[in-house]
Amino acid sequence: MCGDKIDDFYAIIPAGGVGSRLWPISRKDRPKFLYDFLGAGSTLIQSTYLRLSALAGEGHVVVSTGERHVDAVREQIPALDDADIFAEPVGRDSTAAIALASAVLARRHGEDVVVGSFAADHVIRGQKAFAKSVRQAVAAARAGYVCTIGIAASRPSTAFGYIRQGEPLGAEVPDAPDACKVRKFVEKPDAATAQAYLITGEYRWNAGMFVMRAGTLLARLREYKPQMAEQIARIADAWDTDRRAAVMGEVWPAIEKIAFDYSIAEPLAAEGGVAMVPGGFGWDDVGDFNSLAALLPSRNEQNIKLLGDSSNLVQMDSAGDVVVAEAGRTIALLGVNDMVVVDTPDALLVAPRARSQEVKDMVNKIADMGRDDIL
Amino acid sequence: MCGDKIDDFYAIIPAGGVGSRLWPISRKDRPKFLYDFLGAGSTLIQSTYLRLSALAGEGHVVVSTGERHVDAVREQIPALDDADIFAEPVGRDSTAAIALASAVLARRHGEDVVVGSFAADHVIRGQKAFAKSVRQAVAAARAGYVCTIGIAASRPSTAFGYIRQGEPLGAEVPDAPDACKVRKFVEKPDAATAQAYLITGEYRWNAGMFVMRAGTLLARLREYKPQMAEQIARIADAWDTDRRAAVMGEVWPAIEKIAFDYSIAEPLAAEGGVAMVPGGFGWDDVGDFNSLAALLPSRNEQNIKLLGDSSNLVQMDSAGDVVVAEAGRTIALLGVNDMVVVDTPDALLVAPRARSQEVKDMVNKIADMGRDDIL
Repeated sequence: MCGDKIDDFYAIIPAGGVGSRLWPISRKDRPKFLYDFLGAGSTLIQSTYLRLSALAGEGHVVVSTGERHVDAVREQIPALDDADIFAEPVGRDSTAAIALASAVLARRHGEDVVVGSFAADHVIRGQKAFAKSVRQAVAAARAGYVCTIGIAASRPSTAFGYIRQGEPLGAEVPDAPDACKVRKFVEKPDAATAQAYLITGEYRWNAGMFVMRAGTLLARLREYKPQMAEQIARIADAWDTDRRAAVMGEVWPAIEKIAFDYSIAEPLAAEGGVAMVPGGFGWDDVGDFNSLAALLPSRNEQNIKLLGDSSNLVQMDSAGDVVVAEAGRTIALLGVNDMVVVDTPDALLVAPRARSQEVKDMVNKIADMGRDDIL
Repeated sequence: MCGDKIDDFYAIIPAGGVGSRLWPISRKDRPKFLYDFLGAGSTLIQSTYLRLSALAGEGHVVVSTGERHVDAVREQIPALDDADIFAEPVGRDSTAAIALASAVLARRHGEDVVVGSFAADHVIRGQKAFAKSVRQAVAAARAGYVCTIGIAASRPSTAFGYIRQGEPLGAEVPDAPDACKVRKFVEKPDAATAQAYLITGEYRWNAGMFVMRAGTLLARLREYKPQMAEQIARIADAWDTDRRAAVMGEVWPAIEKIAFDYSIAEPLAAEGGVAMVPGGFGWDDVGDFNSLAALLPSRNEQNIKLLGDSSNLVQMDSAGDVVVAEAGRTIALLGVNDMVVVDTPDALLVAPRARSQEVKDMVNKIADMGRDDIL
């Protein structure tokens, strides 16, 4: 049973976000989801597609992305139909992206199909455990819930939002034995608050995975964001016609920019309409070079994490570094500890690992300098 | 008088030594003397040539260098005659280099001409003070001394050999009023010894500058190194004939490899035959990136020393770094302090400034790896 496709399930892959904390690997024209961050032979979006098509089946996976990335996505995932790539002329955040794909899928396959949104740039390890969580989430979705998958918080991270769990769904949804209600979603906490969350045992990380019947989502959207619901309906009506481009171009840019967490998940959780199943798989959003380091194998006793050809690295008396060798040049480290060294053909970044989060500020500074050529 | 050429003076520029502590700027095929280390618009050997030809006159300056560098030297100093470039098929250290040039100059112009050897890769500031020292050294040389120029030891460096001064020459050489005898030459000391030297006030740095009559040198060579004297004489006899290449190729490789300090200067100092005039000019051998830093102007409040185009450097919260931007790429430093970052098209070096001396060990490691392509 575990290997079967879930016939009424459609996966949506929102592929947005540059990942500026991963500059200079991640660029405006090559955001992190188009990059093979683990040196595994497939990019993050390719891995995401393979993971989801194994569950939903080919033809049951769609991608939402910026217009500038459509060609790259098409090239990386040749199996995608053009009509299943939702090209956004401007980014309108996750509510619009998920709602449009859901509305189009509802028109094609009926409002009872279950849709699930999974970001293109996350790393997931353990396909079996992932499949188990998704199957339970789909069951909760069929029962009417918007269901999220909560990631076990392995440390008091301040980089993620948290989900506070409530009562088990129990007998209400027999096919989702591990599901519980969500009491609320909370924003990225400070360190002390994150620590307090962990101690309670009631909090999990919010990875932005949402599974629900298309009809459930569209009804909630009409309730919470009626104007957006109308705009999305207009585009969805035109999507599989020759008016797609015209209506998209006219309506899309005016849509409100708001994250799905704020527009739907939070208000609905307050009404008891959101469920959570625990994610029993390894997860990471590869947010910065420090988190990338945790995903890469150590190549040597010095615990230097290398992405790239190891013949390009020469080190003496160095340890704990994260090195990305993308320019094909020799990188010689002498007495360099716990640093990030990212070598690309047109830009080099050097920073202590401890300041990985601030790479974003560096990117902002470069933008302020008008150096769009390297962003 | 000060601006006049010294008619009987000929300058020899030994241009050897890769400068491996300056890798990856300095390479086998582009040793440091061929590089513009100060971003001043002229390479070290060009500056050396200009400094010496201003004193000795054009046509009075010769260069000894490895065969592989002859084309580059000719290109950088078009005024040099081919017969004034002593191309060495293999490096035989400074005694052979200085002796051959001196022997050829003696055959051309007589044994009374004064020759002076000045390394191609040193930085000297203060042409007037330099000229004054050289003029005094030439005067001491005419009186029969091998005369060196001692550099004021501004710190207890362990990177240089030292010269211990003795009695002033005084009335013996009226045109060298600041000259004194050399009691002895001492090797690179450890830190405590260097400190002790400084306290005495009797020690100066040995910059390897030697000025003497050609005849004096050749006589001493016959005395201390008779075999080498014979070999040098054979080559010098053939130099300005069509047998130059044949005799050089036959005799040169067999010559003993020994530094001038050991072969001539030390034993002669013990006999009282070496004099020293103080060098009142700024001097540095640009031995490593830390000493390079001292020579570069600070471009900003953070005291970051940059060699290259400043538009290639973006920094946040970084200070005290030495950055060489030679690859035309953007170098982004975030929270990086007191580091060396040297960016060249095919190799990148990152190291703390405090470990600049060990860059040599890194180069040895790369050589051991068989990576001749980047050496």
